[in-house]
Amino acid sequence: MPDETTSSEIVVEPAPCPAWLPDGALAAVGRRRVAVAGPPDDEVLVTVRREAERATSAHGGAVVDPDDSPDILLEASSVLDSSSNGRNEDQVSTLDVGSGFRLVRDGGRVTVAAATATALLHGWFHVVRLGEAAFAGPDADERHAPAFALRVLDHWDNVDVHPVMGQVERGYSGGSIFYDAGRVREDLSRVTTYARLLAATGIDRVCINNVNVHAREARLLTDDLPEVARVAGALRPYGVRTHLAVSFAAPMTLGGLPTSDPLDDGVRAWWRAAADRVWATIPDFGGFVVKADSEGQPGPFAYGRDHADGANLLAEAVAPHGGVVHWRAFVYDHTQDWRDRSTDRARAAYDHFAPLDGRFAENVVVQVKHGPMDFQTREPVSPVLAAMPGSRLALELQVTQEYTGQQRHACYLAPWWSENLGFRPWGHGDDDGVAVRDLVAPGGIAAVSNVGDDRFWTGHPLAQANLYAFGRLAWDPTLDPAAILDEWIGLTFAGPEGAVEPRVREVLHAVLDDSWRTYESYTAPLGVGFMVRPGHHYGPDVDGYEYTPWGTYHFADRDGIGVDRTRATGTGFTGQYPAPWRDVYEDVATCPDELLLFFHHVPYTHVLHSGVTVVQHVYDTHFAGVDRVREAIAAWESLDGRVPSDVDARVRERLAEQLRSAVEWRDQLNTYFFRKSGIPDAHGRTIF
Amino acid sequence: MPDETTSSEIVVEPAPCPAWLPDGALAAVGRRRVAVAGPPDDEVLVTVRREAERATSAHGGAVVDPDDSPDILLEASSVLDSSSNGRNEDQVSTLDVGSGFRLVRDGGRVTVAAATATALLHGWFHVVRLGEAAFAGPDADERHAPAFALRVLDHWDNVDVHPVMGQVERGYSGGSIFYDAGRVREDLSRVTTYARLLAATGIDRVCINNVNVHAREARLLTDDLPEVARVAGALRPYGVRTHLAVSFAAPMTLGGLPTSDPLDDGVRAWWRAAADRVWATIPDFGGFVVKADSEGQPGPFAYGRDHADGANLLAEAVAPHGGVVHWRAFVYDHTQDWRDRSTDRARAAYDHFAPLDGRFAENVVVQVKHGPMDFQTREPVSPVLAAMPGSRLALELQVTQEYTGQQRHACYLAPWWSENLGFRPWGHGDDDGVAVRDLVAPGGIAAVSNVGDDRFWTGHPLAQANLYAFGRLAWDPTLDPAAILDEWIGLTFAGPEGAVEPRVREVLHAVLDDSWRTYESYTAPLGVGFMVRPGHHYGPDVDGYEYTPWGTYHFADRDGIGVDRTRATGTGFTGQYPAPWRDVYEDVATCPDELLLFFHHVPYTHVLHSGVTVVQHVYDTHFAGVDRVREAIAAWESLDGRVPSDVDARVRERLAEQLRSAVEWRDQLNTYFFRKSGIPDAHGRTIF
Repeated sequence: MPDETTSSEIVVEPAPCPAWLPDGALAAVGRRRVAVAGPPDDEVLVTVRREAERATSAHGGAVVDPDDSPDILLEASSVLDSSSNGRNEDQVSTLDVGSGFRLVRDGGRVTVAAATATALLHGWFHVVRLGEAAFAGPDADERHAPAFALRVLDHWDNVDVHPVMGQVERGYSGGSIFYDAGRVREDLSRVTTYARLLAATGIDRVCINNVNVHAREARLLTDDLPEVARVAGALRPYGVRTHLAVSFAAPMTLGGLPTSDPLDDGVRAWWRAAADRVWATIPDFGGFVVKADSEGQPGPFAYGRDHADGANLLAEAVAPHGGVVHWRAFVYDHTQDWRDRSTDRARAAYDHFAPLDGRFAENVVVQVKHGPMDFQTREPVSPVLAAMPGSRLALELQVTQEYTGQQRHACYLAPWWSENLGFRPWGHGDDDGVAVRDLVAPGGIAAVSNVGDDRFWTGHPLAQANLYAFGRLAWDPTLDPAAILDEWIGLTFAGPEGAVEPRVREVLHAVLDDSWRTYESYTAPLGVGFMVRPGHHYGPDVDGYEYTPWGTYHFADRDGIGVDRTRATGTGFTGQYPAPWRDVYEDVATCPDELLLFFHHVPYTHVLHSGVTVVQHVYDTHFAGVDRVREAIAAWESLDGRVPSDVDARVRERLAEQLRSAVEWRDQLNTYFFRKSGIPDAHGRTIF
Repeated sequence: MPDETTSSEIVVEPAPCPAWLPDGALAAVGRRRVAVAGPPDDEVLVTVRREAERATSAHGGAVVDPDDSPDILLEASSVLDSSSNGRNEDQVSTLDVGSGFRLVRDGGRVTVAAATATALLHGWFHVVRLGEAAFAGPDADERHAPAFALRVLDHWDNVDVHPVMGQVERGYSGGSIFYDAGRVREDLSRVTTYARLLAATGIDRVCINNVNVHAREARLLTDDLPEVARVAGALRPYGVRTHLAVSFAAPMTLGGLPTSDPLDDGVRAWWRAAADRVWATIPDFGGFVVKADSEGQPGPFAYGRDHADGANLLAEAVAPHGGVVHWRAFVYDHTQDWRDRSTDRARAAYDHFAPLDGRFAENVVVQVKHGPMDFQTREPVSPVLAAMPGSRLALELQVTQEYTGQQRHACYLAPWWSENLGFRPWGHGDDDGVAVRDLVAPGGIAAVSNVGDDRFWTGHPLAQANLYAFGRLAWDPTLDPAAILDEWIGLTFAGPEGAVEPRVREVLHAVLDDSWRTYESYTAPLGVGFMVRPGHHYGPDVDGYEYTPWGTYHFADRDGIGVDRTRATGTGFTGQYPAPWRDVYEDVATCPDELLLFFHHVPYTHVLHSGVTVVQHVYDTHFAGVDRVREAIAAWESLDGRVPSDVDARVRERLAEQLRSAVEWRDQLNTYFFRKSGIPDAHGRTIF
């Protein structure tokens, strides 16, 4: 049995891939003389110095004294000192936007100055991203600051492996990088590596556990605080602060109180004591994230209280420490009766939260999903974002590809996020209108992470681009998605000397630039949403949610499809928008094609602005979508040998699955609509 | 907090309910003078004596000497001694049908005589069932023998709790009575109580683990044999023999061999040694049950061998011990492409097994599901049963209500099983034709158990009737289902003196007699099958399986529905039947209504023999089915106080869920067909 010996070989787990920080990406800075100045005992400044040492030792430069004519001078605490006057540092970074850096280029030499070492670190990675261009331009004096002070990545990681949802809920990248075997990992070095990747994008806060807080995970707030402190310690060197998702029922489940009523004095005292313990253990702790009265999670409704009462309870507890409460607006009836066509899940967040505007404490951030449903490939922007001028709102995005291919399909989401951030609820006025990105500036941005212990971090290596792009948009939401992708390519595929082969750049753009629209084209059409298989949400099942309690219906019959959300004849959801959108969406003649079925129930023979009927649009886009996947595969295969072989192998495997799945989507959708409508494809293509 | 004290009280688990053997059921025998004669050291004879003592001490009778004028004389080894001449006892009960008893009534005194103590025990329970009638009739001398020598209950119990399928696969009655916390239970007294219930029906073999043999359960065959022996020891006092489900890959996974090829000498030797160890540990062990090349289980196909090769491998190993191999014919492609309308899962068992007829060893029983699909509420009888005259076939039924309401719906299945057992594949000829019950006499009958550690054994107390009826039909397949139910009512609801209130009898018949047809009426129509929610198989999802790899489609479009399985234009499945059925099913004009959509794709406007269209039939039956559930509830509620309060409470809870679920089925099915057909209900009832 000669084959048996192979099974006894020890398999060495390969190190995680360097993502967008391979050594080659540091070539331009690493070739230079770098000086670091600032408080010597600052933990993050030590990191900045180590980064400089790492880069220069790899590429032949050197770390020198500030007065030894450095090519790059990195200075902490020299330009923005005054802004933190009278407040402690935690409060500055929690509540202020002023956490940027100044970049001066003077005769080819670069100086980066910042008030804090963390901001300096972000400046350092800015120079890394620029590469040689940082030194080549004309003299300049620029100030860079993040658009959003709060840039949070939410991990839906469980400590235990949940029997249904796994270790990482909606995770497609293996297990958690934080937890293993029911506890915080012994070795957290990968967490620090992760923090480094985040710092290089600008993300500076991480919530380390699932918003669905199960019994085991609830204890992170109490018994396991020392373990949470270890995680915070692993994130801290890169200036990343730790948040926890907590259960609204914690006073009962952890504290043994008879109630969790937010107006009960005992409950208030319990939360204050809990917060005191957290900050005593982790002085730079960020705050709490809460999913309440949502999909079975406990909340204030049980006590006849509202979400302002609930959020303010926690806000009061964390306020003395400069902490923040992210309170999710994802509240709806998940036990709806499909027979009841008057109830509309899309209305729910607005109906629950808009009336509470002005009642939330200053350190509450109401975290609003970008669309009124649930991270679909296409939805209108949530009207909640325009309805709460007296509240701090955060925009919630989903980096993990729950509904967008689960990191088996290449689907670059930055164009979709950019559309949402740039949406102008009041239209284009004289001043070009206020955009979502302006509305959420006080509350910032949050997203569900796509990272796990997979060696490529994100399962699909190309899904790294989504995490990178989220961080960059969190810093500057006006960035062009294609430009961000170009940055990501330049870093990720940098050769040893920092250069990227033009063909690699070209192919990655070809595969990713329009991949979100490609994904849209072969999945649920015209904004109708869902049509995924219930439970795991991968692959098609047109009627899968049609008769369920989840409020996600398409109402297809033999004549037509779509949800009538008009004020005139439907659920009235259009009325939640200000003008002009309340009228644009209301009228089938002006409603954009891509959202037609979200707002209207129309016959299959309805002619779109594009000139084809709804049913022909389904056929056309589904055939075209598969063709585009085939083109992406051909493009990728033309790269032969130009990307690392392990990346190549994984991408090829994923592309093959994407094609299989896209064909399945195409055939199921086309067959479903053909069987229902009886209308054949105008071009006679195969429908089963 | 005065309420807190209640949570510290110790909850005493109530004893399992007595099912069909409450003390009252023993009143007629217990009031009499009973004598037991036979080999004093026979373990089962000891049981017979204890049963007599238990009954008489409860009801005022006495156990007396055989010569002391007993009212009941129970004698082992007096009438059939010669039949076991020259063979050991194991072989007798494994291979012969002659395991009955003789009952003599002479002037009101009853003598039961049998060759073995187990047969005597069955005779004793026969007298128990008869009650006073046993003594009241005219003088008689009857011989009773089971129609099937092999009467097996298959438990799909896992030792561990499986992450998806739970501890009991398709179990709706709590955990396993055999296993707890990953091992065989310490206290097996309930297993003995279970064996007593089985002995009272006639079942005498139990396979104690899931046919999907996972890694943990595979070890029952080897490391855990002493534990299996403990289970066998708990079943043995009531004459119930133990079987094990084994994995075809065991030589590799347990034995470390490089192959499981059935023609490999090392593999043959491994199985022989494994069987030798089993019988050395458990001398009356029954045999192995195998699911091979089915739904992912390993099998002979991996080696280019067929199922006769596979089955004979194990048969050779168990033959020296008189063992039997139950080899399941449930083999089909579960990775089918829904686009491929030429492949027909209904054909699979016949296509795989019929060509192998005559090649199976004598001690192989090919275990055939009653229908060609998978335990649906309505299917035609499997054509395999008529296609293998040179093989020992067993009929496989499903007592656990996987597709028939999961023990939340009252659904008395004996009428359905009776139809299957009485089906005549060659029609009604001169001699009335050969029935399925005749065809399977050599191989017997097997069924998937519905029992768990629930206090009512079966979740729904009324589901006990299915287990009871299976045992009775296994003994005598010609029994009338209503009469069996009447027997079950008489035993189960016997008052202290053995009597049942007439109203109780009446209501239970009203609720159960036609409950299978009621269930059929509000679920998938006209034999089309499935339409259940994928995975758990509870509740409606009309398109749930329509685009899956499972081969279970209905092909509904806007014009019609059904699967064309004709020879003329369809998959040719009708050709697997002998005449007359091959022609009866082939022709839409002669095909029975209840199987129309199993065999034909027809327009919604097709007029059934009943005179209504297909779509109107869907509406009518679905409205009527819900009405019938409401009637059952009203009938049950009229029982107020006439059944034990715990039984009453559980049944009411289940009936409420049945009504909720039936309404859901009605509304989803009606809405689905209305949306698809556009044809309104002729009677204008509410369709959503």
